Amino acid sequence: VIPAGGGGTRLWPRSRQATPKQFLDIVSHRTMLQETADRLEELVPPDRVFVITNARHVGPVREQLPEVPHENIVGEPAGRDSAPAIGLMAALLERVCGADTVMIVLPADHVILDDALFRETLLTAANAARQGYLVTLGIPPKGPDTGFGYIQSGAKLEQLGSGDIDVLTVKQFKEKPKREVAQQYLAEGGYFWNAGMFIATVAHLRELYRTHLPQMEAGFAQIVDGLLNGNPKVLEEIFPTLDKISFDYAVTEKADRVAVVPADIGWNDVGSWGRLAEVLSHGKHESTNIVVGDHIGVDTHGSLIYSPHRLVATIGLEDIVVIDTPDATLICPKSRSEEVKHIVEALKVRGDHHLL
Amino acid sequence: VIPAGGGGTRLWPRSRQATPKQFLDIVSHRTMLQETADRLEELVPPDRVFVITNARHVGPVREQLPEVPHENIVGEPAGRDSAPAIGLMAALLERVCGADTVMIVLPADHVILDDALFRETLLTAANAARQGYLVTLGIPPKGPDTGFGYIQSGAKLEQLGSGDIDVLTVKQFKEKPKREVAQQYLAEGGYFWNAGMFIATVAHLRELYRTHLPQMEAGFAQIVDGLLNGNPKVLEEIFPTLDKISFDYAVTEKADRVAVVPADIGWNDVGSWGRLAEVLSHGKHESTNIVVGDHIGVDTHGSLIYSPHRLVATIGLEDIVVIDTPDATLICPKSRSEEVKHIVEALKVRGDHHLL
Repeated sequence: VIPAGGGGTRLWPRSRQATPKQFLDIVSHRTMLQETADRLEELVPPDRVFVITNARHVGPVREQLPEVPHENIVGEPAGRDSAPAIGLMAALLERVCGADTVMIVLPADHVILDDALFRETLLTAANAARQGYLVTLGIPPKGPDTGFGYIQSGAKLEQLGSGDIDVLTVKQFKEKPKREVAQQYLAEGGYFWNAGMFIATVAHLRELYRTHLPQMEAGFAQIVDGLLNGNPKVLEEIFPTLDKISFDYAVTEKADRVAVVPADIGWNDVGSWGRLAEVLSHGKHESTNIVVGDHIGVDTHGSLIYSPHRLVATIGLEDIVVIDTPDATLICPKSRSEEVKHIVEALKVRGDHHLL
Repeated sequence: VIPAGGGGTRLWPRSRQATPKQFLDIVSHRTMLQETADRLEELVPPDRVFVITNARHVGPVREQLPEVPHENIVGEPAGRDSAPAIGLMAALLERVCGADTVMIVLPADHVILDDALFRETLLTAANAARQGYLVTLGIPPKGPDTGFGYIQSGAKLEQLGSGDIDVLTVKQFKEKPKREVAQQYLAEGGYFWNAGMFIATVAHLRELYRTHLPQMEAGFAQIVDGLLNGNPKVLEEIFPTLDKISFDYAVTEKADRVAVVPADIGWNDVGSWGRLAEVLSHGKHESTNIVVGDHIGVDTHGSLIYSPHRLVATIGLEDIVVIDTPDATLICPKSRSEEVKHIVEALKVRGDHHLL
């Protein structure tokens, strides 16, 4: 199951509301959604790939994943955060694939550099899922990042690991920390970034929803009936009435048998231009410029230049991001690229909806 | 006489070979050529304004200065530096206006902020010219700039000054100095920037050419005959055969009776984006951004943003120049904007003539 509902403001001006980053070929010649599907190719046949996305993006998903059956692509009529989306997909999979199915949830807009290790990790996680665990993948932190939730791991579950891949119990989920707290986590050890990837059997997830979100059950049943009987109107009517709440908060943090599989798989959420630059400059010298399009640089270093439509000429820039699109250009230091949200806010205030 | 032959590389990408900066409305709603003519309005009637420019730019000059008679606009078929251009105009003016005429030479692409003082200065200079001097305007240096030639002044010519405006003898013309030398000039005092503006009678200039560049005389005579008899072909044939040499080198530096009038008139040659920023931010706080077009800045200060066609969004930029045009964008620190010549060179090497 690929949740592909991201809003697309963090890579503005390249990503827009109409084309969030999962639909962009921003890392390679394939879009991030396509790369997510490609990564699963050896493990999951296309008719077992499901996508839940914003209703307005069902068309782009169908175009980008032509091998995935149309009925596997569900369009949310309104964003209700992750709990309703994941729960609906578990309810749908119970009917379509059966309760014993292992459900893998992988966001559509992340990068994973080590595909082979990622697949091995998923197989280990799937095995733990079959043993009754809700399994999250834990990314070994590269620094005291304050933009991610953290997972505090506990004892090793000896019988569930395979080869070099461990399965650990989860002591606690931690919300996005302040910098000092994040530094403490790093010093202490045993903490991982929560990357929003998890694995469980459909039966286990269904049980968790019945226990922790019973009020959604009737809605799920009606929507799934509608979808399977060719009546998508039910989805449009009922989905927007479900509680707006996150899966981590409503389910994961309340579950008992939760495990974490440390996954040093070259993961990156591409949550800002600076983070994308990290991916694109992987294995290169830090002073190298990353250029997509046409650039002439005089004494410019360590910069990310995206300008497929026109020449960007720079003199004496250091660690700068330049993103040139037909109607807007962004220029900022790599280290401050997360502040693009303030630009997006300013555009909303101005009412410049064509630029959002 | 307005020489308007500048090549237009220093304000790339706004200025191009086809539209050098004198033809751009880059400082105000009027083009720099128009502002140069406007500045003379109270002193010189339009039929006494003459322009010498590149032949390809005769059309734009006619359009921008509709009040100037077409026969006053001379198009050089090839650039031969300033001596042939000035000499030809002096020869033409001798026939059209008479030898006693005071000829004022003012480049088309400079800014002067204090128009009133400038006009007073010109009147004083014209008086000194009538007394037999070749008069240059000297700009009090604002710093040890290495981009200008310097004029070393001598004694005051008491009888020629008027009010606060002095007329000084010239000891020596100095070529563009190294930084230490420029600093020495400033410490010593009595030095001025050579702004390329000068005043002399036509008779005096003709005499200087006959003395120092006698080999051009026959050419001038034939071309002027051609122009006055409606046969511009002669210009096309003969002008390119004249020696390529500068007026300062060939004439001014060799003349005897040369004077300089200090002119603290808010002059700026707009020789780089940084120099244009100085003009546009005149009287404003140094942290103010100068914006032409659409800009959203988050913590951006002291920057020059030109982007009439699209939004430029910036975060955390300090003293940066951003020039956005339909086919090329330039980004550089103000202090390094003179290095745009390296970009232009790179484009020549690439053969990207459409961007030049």
